[in-house]
Amino acid sequence: MIIHLKNTVAEEEAQRIAEELQAILIAKEEIVLVTPSKLQELPAHLTSKVSKAVAVPNDIQLASKLYMNETRSITIGDTTIGGSSNNTLMITGPCSVENEEQIEKAAKFCVEQGVKVLRAGCYKPRTSPYSFQGLGLQGLKLLAKMRDKYGLKIITEVRDASHVDDVIEYTDIIQIGAKAMYDHGILRRCGEARKPVLLKRGFGSTLQEFVQAAEFILSGGNDEVILCERGIRTFETNTRFTLDLCGVAFLKEKTNLPVILDPSHAMGYAYGVPDLARACVAMGIEGLLIESHPTPKEAWSDAAQQLNFDEYAELLASLKSVAQAVGRKLV
Amino acid sequence: MIIHLKNTVAEEEAQRIAEELQAILIAKEEIVLVTPSKLQELPAHLTSKVSKAVAVPNDIQLASKLYMNETRSITIGDTTIGGSSNNTLMITGPCSVENEEQIEKAAKFCVEQGVKVLRAGCYKPRTSPYSFQGLGLQGLKLLAKMRDKYGLKIITEVRDASHVDDVIEYTDIIQIGAKAMYDHGILRRCGEARKPVLLKRGFGSTLQEFVQAAEFILSGGNDEVILCERGIRTFETNTRFTLDLCGVAFLKEKTNLPVILDPSHAMGYAYGVPDLARACVAMGIEGLLIESHPTPKEAWSDAAQQLNFDEYAELLASLKSVAQAVGRKLV
Amino acid sequence: MIIHLKNTVAEEEAQRIAEELQAILIAKEEIVLVTPSKLQELPAHLTSKVSKAVAVPNDIQLASKLYMNETRSITIGDTTIGGSSNNTLMITGPCSVENEEQIEKAAKFCVEQGVKVLRAGCYKPRTSPYSFQGLGLQGLKLLAKMRDKYGLKIITEVRDASHVDDVIEYTDIIQIGAKAMYDHGILRRCGEARKPVLLKRGFGSTLQEFVQAAEFILSGGNDEVILCERGIRTFETNTRFTLDLCGVAFLKEKTNLPVILDPSHAMGYAYGVPDLARACVAMGIEGLLIESHPTPKEAWSDAAQQLNFDEYAELLASLKSVAQAVGRKLV
Amino acid sequence: MIIHLKNTVAEEEAQRIAEELQAILIAKEEIVLVTPSKLQELPAHLTSKVSKAVAVPNDIQLASKLYMNETRSITIGDTTIGGSSNNTLMITGPCSVENEEQIEKAAKFCVEQGVKVLRAGCYKPRTSPYSFQGLGLQGLKLLAKMRDKYGLKIITEVRDASHVDDVIEYTDIIQIGAKAMYDHGILRRCGEARKPVLLKRGFGSTLQEFVQAAEFILSGGNDEVILCERGIRTFETNTRFTLDLCGVAFLKEKTNLPVILDPSHAMGYAYGVPDLARACVAMGIEGLLIESHPTPKEAWSDAAQQLNFDEYAELLASLKSVAQAVGRKLV
Repeated sequence: MIIHLKNTVAEEEAQRIAEELQAILIAKEEIVLVTPSKLQELPAHLTSKVSKAVAVPNDIQLASKLYMNETRSITIGDTTIGGSSNNTLMITGPCSVENEEQIEKAAKFCVEQGVKVLRAGCYKPRTSPYSFQGLGLQGLKLLAKMRDKYGLKIITEVRDASHVDDVIEYTDIIQIGAKAMYDHGILRRCGEARKPVLLKRGFGSTLQEFVQAAEFILSGGNDEVILCERGIRTFETNTRFTLDLCGVAFLKEKTNLPVILDPSHAMGYAYGVPDLARACVAMGIEGLLIESHPTPKEAWSDAAQQLNFDEYAELLASLKSVAQAVGRKLV
Repeated sequence: MIIHLKNTVAEEEAQRIAEELQAILIAKEEIVLVTPSKLQELPAHLTSKVSKAVAVPNDIQLASKLYMNETRSITIGDTTIGGSSNNTLMITGPCSVENEEQIEKAAKFCVEQGVKVLRAGCYKPRTSPYSFQGLGLQGLKLLAKMRDKYGLKIITEVRDASHVDDVIEYTDIIQIGAKAMYDHGILRRCGEARKPVLLKRGFGSTLQEFVQAAEFILSGGNDEVILCERGIRTFETNTRFTLDLCGVAFLKEKTNLPVILDPSHAMGYAYGVPDLARACVAMGIEGLLIESHPTPKEAWSDAAQQLNFDEYAELLASLKSVAQAVGRKLV
Repeated sequence: MIIHLKNTVAEEEAQRIAEELQAILIAKEEIVLVTPSKLQELPAHLTSKVSKAVAVPNDIQLASKLYMNETRSITIGDTTIGGSSNNTLMITGPCSVENEEQIEKAAKFCVEQGVKVLRAGCYKPRTSPYSFQGLGLQGLKLLAKMRDKYGLKIITEVRDASHVDDVIEYTDIIQIGAKAMYDHGILRRCGEARKPVLLKRGFGSTLQEFVQAAEFILSGGNDEVILCERGIRTFETNTRFTLDLCGVAFLKEKTNLPVILDPSHAMGYAYGVPDLARACVAMGIEGLLIESHPTPKEAWSDAAQQLNFDEYAELLASLKSVAQAVGRKLV
Repeated sequence: MIIHLKNTVAEEEAQRIAEELQAILIAKEEIVLVTPSKLQELPAHLTSKVSKAVAVPNDIQLASKLYMNETRSITIGDTTIGGSSNNTLMITGPCSVENEEQIEKAAKFCVEQGVKVLRAGCYKPRTSPYSFQGLGLQGLKLLAKMRDKYGLKIITEVRDASHVDDVIEYTDIIQIGAKAMYDHGILRRCGEARKPVLLKRGFGSTLQEFVQAAEFILSGGNDEVILCERGIRTFETNTRFTLDLCGVAFLKEKTNLPVILDPSHAMGYAYGVPDLARACVAMGIEGLLIESHPTPKEAWSDAAQQLNFDEYAELLASLKSVAQAVGRKLV
């Protein structure tokens, strides 16, 4: 149950009530308590202290449409997604920061195409210790340089809790990778941060678990959570993962969080990305994350799935028509 | 290996070569042999008898783009899909034929909306013996009546080999259901038939197995096979199945068969069907199968996922814009 | 709800009640009606006609422990499994009947090892039309010959409804293959048969669906259904399938049907079969199906997973100790 | 490729070679380099500096049977698993440390049953922020107290990198939870530690990824890694997860790491645990992790799957017979 306390309730009393109800306390303009969802009725002796109370059927609480009946609005620079906007945010860039020359080409390409957010990984969650692991802090600094030089916003991934503070410091949107979706160390620090967080769905995670991971951030006091579907693991291996658009329909219906899609990681092969990207935009979503690289074949990671710049430019043109057909605008 | 024999080769000799190569023989204008794919080189002594020979890397053979480099063209009544057309065929109707009044409402609705193909099940592949099992032959006759009365084409499902001949006789497009995808009894009879076959992917079947099931039909001599993705089974249970659009991208890239999508069965809930249907059309596919019912809540099967007529009409209008945005036309 | 009618109720009246309750009628010593499970209370006006009525929570009805609180007893020749026996039935033989010499070697090996049931496939559910499809009726006749000559019982698989009657005629235990688990044409004919049926779980089928498929047979009047777990399809591809022993624990707890396991198809590689076979026997099951072949490497199908005779003999010896450790006896 | 350098090669030169080959350097009695597996032949100019070089087909390297052809031996207190021992280590205890009284009951029960290793969680990887999250450091201290008072060894889970050092300090076996299997922050710290590590397979992780996660620890210089299969996520939901014993057969065949199984988390229900535990022991494994609790119904987490003490004692007795039947000894 989500309980908004009246402004007349002092913080000390709020703390006492939180303890009584085993609730998490979020202190903002109002004090909000979130109890385990099994609490379905407000105890009578508290009624006078409460301005609003919403019972929900399970632990999708702050993210639920039952609590807030429209998509949350999130602002990145001068751009807004969600809320009453019909914006679909374009994000592109290479899988990894490899060196300054490469990331600068990517930054310039964003500017040229009117894309406002540059993505690239610095801490790569590789499954083998014998592969390239990312440039780490050096990569973060190169990204920050691109932001300053080209007026772009930056999104990059935090891989584990040992470097979460560095990523929070250097990036504009904090990306939590699919393999780190359950990482409490990251989720709690993102809950304290005051920057948008893009939370990727674990490829073995249910929709319920996915949104509950977002609840860790929301209940930590950070309202700006974006969900990102990037493909789940199924028995099919001719494609890298399986993009779960049925799941996206569920998220749009049941939650108040903006949804951004990543068809590149789902497909794993550049040939399928344009068709899938058009399908994603036709779903009416808040954003689209596509990997592109100046020379995909030479990429240090995920070489097969990155588009080259010509392919991306051609795709972007076609996406504009699709967005228009469903009443949305690419930004 | 697919081997086209020269017209100078007599049938008896063709039979002998087929035996030598353990090949399936397809007798049409040309005689075509299909050997196991492990044969990668044409035996030297046969070269003079062969007009064309194509080696493919696995048992996706007749369906492969390596054999025929464009989507096969299939004609249903006065409508063509695949080939050089950019048509996307609309198919709708209820899950089951329940009675004449209900199916006539559905037929009239098709006419009203300009939809040319009516779908409805007569042999329902229910998972419980204690549920409604379909009207059987009586249902087929009601569908045939609607065809005659309203000039519609009919598609209905064959559940098992015991009634495959009845379905072949009464329908315009033979639908092989997901649970029957591996049914040799059905596949072989459909190979002998001279009507289009819509083959649904088994929800536990890989893309490789799916296309190989189509090979049973194609190698039986029937060229008119349409693939239908309708959701695969994954760990996610908040939706009924998971529509595999990555798989569709694979099928479009690797095979020469038209692809029709069924988002209704994948989603399992009406609320998600419109967004998914728009995504499907944006993929650039040959057709769309959507369940609709005069009064979904009273449906005898799959009540949760069928659109009512107003919802379908509204969806259809929006699909036209999406189709146009990707250079396709709804028919 | 399962309703046993009193012997005083005439068949005509029983028919009428069945119709009223939309129930399936099974006529044996007693008349038994099975209604859809949503019926949870017996209508008052029928109380006087009923000797026993059992409401169950879902469409696992005749197979439920709530209906019959011990494992059903099934007799194959002079051997009984289930009931109060602690027998574990050993079944072995090659994947396919290839020719008389090969199947006779297999039959002799059974006799030598004291194995009473010989398995081998005649109708192979191959996923490619370009592979060996089985000897069909000729294979059935070879199996019957082995039965007569060596006093063995025979189990072989029906692939689709087009040859179900042949298999029922020639075999001692009718095997319904994993790909045919949903095949109503087969299930209904097996319901009418009076021979034991071994029903394999579809590799994409839930436990609920699996047991409901058995309900088709049971509600057709055939009491002798054996469940066979043979591996489900998951994301893991280093093994062919994933043997679901958690599922076996569920089946043992919730159903009254004997369970036989097939670790050969689950694993797909001979190296893992012995360890898995020992694990299966330790589960306390009614039978074990292991593929063995005189010369596995030359097998016409499933070459990788079949044990040679030495390996099988060695395994069998170790299985006896495991069986004894869990209070069971190999037969 | 795994390269052992001769002792005559100075560390500085070893560093240079490591750089040249993009290899990880492990400095122990010998200096060992591990290069990406794509290196399949030793460069000629290095031959004279190398005492041993093993090429493996993929990034399962240090864990591969191709590198070390027997199961690694690991010592916990006065007990050894792996190597030439046939020991199967019993580990039990509650899901979570709840308070001193509860954990002391569990410790006394271990002593009484002759179980040498006590398990209990302090940092619980819950999927909802509104559930009990574990006692944290306070729990670690209670576990340490039990070790000192009862002479037990302790195993407890690290959830994320933010508290990895605390867990390493307080525990005897470091458990990496299924949800943290990919956590580089944890894996790298465990690579530096000199304590045994029990690595649980992520429920959405392939066997290849699982063993590669172990490679992070091994290549960090810690030789003592134990693999733990605890159930993977599949489409089946009547059980919590699906215990992958086919996968265990693969791990035993291909890797040199001891394997411990956790049937409690796989099944999710106490009723199935005894049968599964017997199956696990029959597989011939190095250990068994079973959850037990003084009063399971009152447990603060995972109440459904924990055995009570009577059930565990009864199970343990039967496991001894099974172990003996397969030539192993419970310790």
